[in-house]
Amino acid sequence: MQTISPTEFKAALADIAQAVEDRINALLPTTDLAEARVFDAMRYGCLNGGKRLRPFLVMQSAALFGVNADCAIRVAAAVEMVHSYSLIHDDLPAMDDGELRRGRPTCHRQFDEATAILAGDGLLTFAFEVLADPATHEDPNIRCQLVTALAKASGGHGMVGGQMLDLIAEHETFDLGTTTRLQRMKTGEMIAYSCEAGGILGKANPPQRTALRAYAHDLGLAFQIVDDLLDVEGTAEETGKTVGRDAQAGKATFVSILGRDRARAQAEMLANQASQHLDIFDGRADMLKAVADFVVARRA
Amino acid sequence: MQTISPTEFKAALADIAQAVEDRINALLPTTDLAEARVFDAMRYGCLNGGKRLRPFLVMQSAALFGVNADCAIRVAAAVEMVHSYSLIHDDLPAMDDGELRRGRPTCHRQFDEATAILAGDGLLTFAFEVLADPATHEDPNIRCQLVTALAKASGGHGMVGGQMLDLIAEHETFDLGTTTRLQRMKTGEMIAYSCEAGGILGKANPPQRTALRAYAHDLGLAFQIVDDLLDVEGTAEETGKTVGRDAQAGKATFVSILGRDRARAQAEMLANQASQHLDIFDGRADMLKAVADFVVARRA
Repeated sequence: MQTISPTEFKAALADIAQAVEDRINALLPTTDLAEARVFDAMRYGCLNGGKRLRPFLVMQSAALFGVNADCAIRVAAAVEMVHSYSLIHDDLPAMDDGELRRGRPTCHRQFDEATAILAGDGLLTFAFEVLADPATHEDPNIRCQLVTALAKASGGHGMVGGQMLDLIAEHETFDLGTTTRLQRMKTGEMIAYSCEAGGILGKANPPQRTALRAYAHDLGLAFQIVDDLLDVEGTAEETGKTVGRDAQAGKATFVSILGRDRARAQAEMLANQASQHLDIFDGRADMLKAVADFVVARRA
Repeated sequence: MQTISPTEFKAALADIAQAVEDRINALLPTTDLAEARVFDAMRYGCLNGGKRLRPFLVMQSAALFGVNADCAIRVAAAVEMVHSYSLIHDDLPAMDDGELRRGRPTCHRQFDEATAILAGDGLLTFAFEVLADPATHEDPNIRCQLVTALAKASGGHGMVGGQMLDLIAEHETFDLGTTTRLQRMKTGEMIAYSCEAGGILGKANPPQRTALRAYAHDLGLAFQIVDDLLDVEGTAEETGKTVGRDAQAGKATFVSILGRDRARAQAEMLANQASQHLDIFDGRADMLKAVADFVVARRA
């Protein structure tokens, strides 16, 4: 039974989005030296954008364990840097060749291709620097766990591997199993990391970690199904990015395989299931449960 | 006074090159899943190549403190992964558009541009995973220090910033001061990290760390001056990469600013100075001193 109203949820999401924006702004360096251009591009690609859903998951999963918000927000900022790097590189001409991202020109259109490649590289690198810093957690073991889990979620077996599959999907037709695996790697692993990070910071016990992982798994899949639906049903104005690209590229998506009605029903089922995994946290997980509702209801 | 002959030095270099090759081969995953292509490109870009100078510096600086070679070689492998990622991205059409690297087609020519971008991303990410792993060192504080220092050396204030300056140098004419800073960031910081890593693993005291840093600083600059000389004097057959690109691009280099004779004299002076910084280690640093001679005498 949900106790968070949509209004309350949106206010909480906006609060954390602002807090993570402020923290990224403070963390990301500026300089008046000749190389300023790469920092400008890093800031352009990472600031002023997005729902900040992954930072929200970090903050709310950390809050389950009473983690100091000032530590958790550093992890939230690092996650958003990695997410932003992936968007910058995915938008490159050699990849998805995106024009619009978060309602603005993509990084390589605003700067140039070389600068966008370097800005992505710089954001990825800086995220690890932020995590390994003693300010993130006093216990170096926790910091190492955060680094390890982020590297696994974003590397070849995670996001990078998922993006490779996505490129291959332009030439090969994947079945539902491979499409599910593609999406789990490309999107799901970083959503899972966002929830796992709270558990690492909070020294969660094994059943708690399992519950968070199961929640994140179902949430990530629901999120991606809705993304596919928005690519078909949404407008660039609503979503802030180019739409209709998957169909144009002839890519297998949840929608092309299942059809719109079954895809939406599947997303709703997964969102409900995601919430149920969190029942072991009693009322403390209501905000995370509200995320599941939001993910299915969103228009962007 | 040097006690290592060129023959001994080359044998030691080849031994460590083989050991790091074997370790990278064991660390870098292979898979028969659909995303195998990105792992193939990661392996292509990182295996079978180069002098492995940076891994040699890691191993020899670690040996100064009696560090377990099985730990040090993991750091050496991580350094080489980051170096290889930087070469893959630098060679991209949007950057230096290289055709040849280590005597073979560059990664994006062997695979394709999108795969090369992802392979670089994957190698950078995996390097941090390797460093944060308990197998690298039992003390998580040491592992965090390794992660932090690598992120600083390779990020916007280090290698990525240096590459940004290098791109700007195609349009702007830099003076000797900015050219020196460019090279320190682009090449020097990772050479410095290779030496610093040995000190971190070996819990070096402050004077030892200062000596290693001063050595690496002078060595890195000497290395880059010789690189510039080889770009003018060398052949693609010798160097295994396209030569004459700097002059063609009209870039300011040490050679274009100082002229060949003064550039070579400067490299030799820096190499001598580099060796002298290591006098505090007595005879234990002879192999690192030999690196300085090698760097100036090399033809590739």
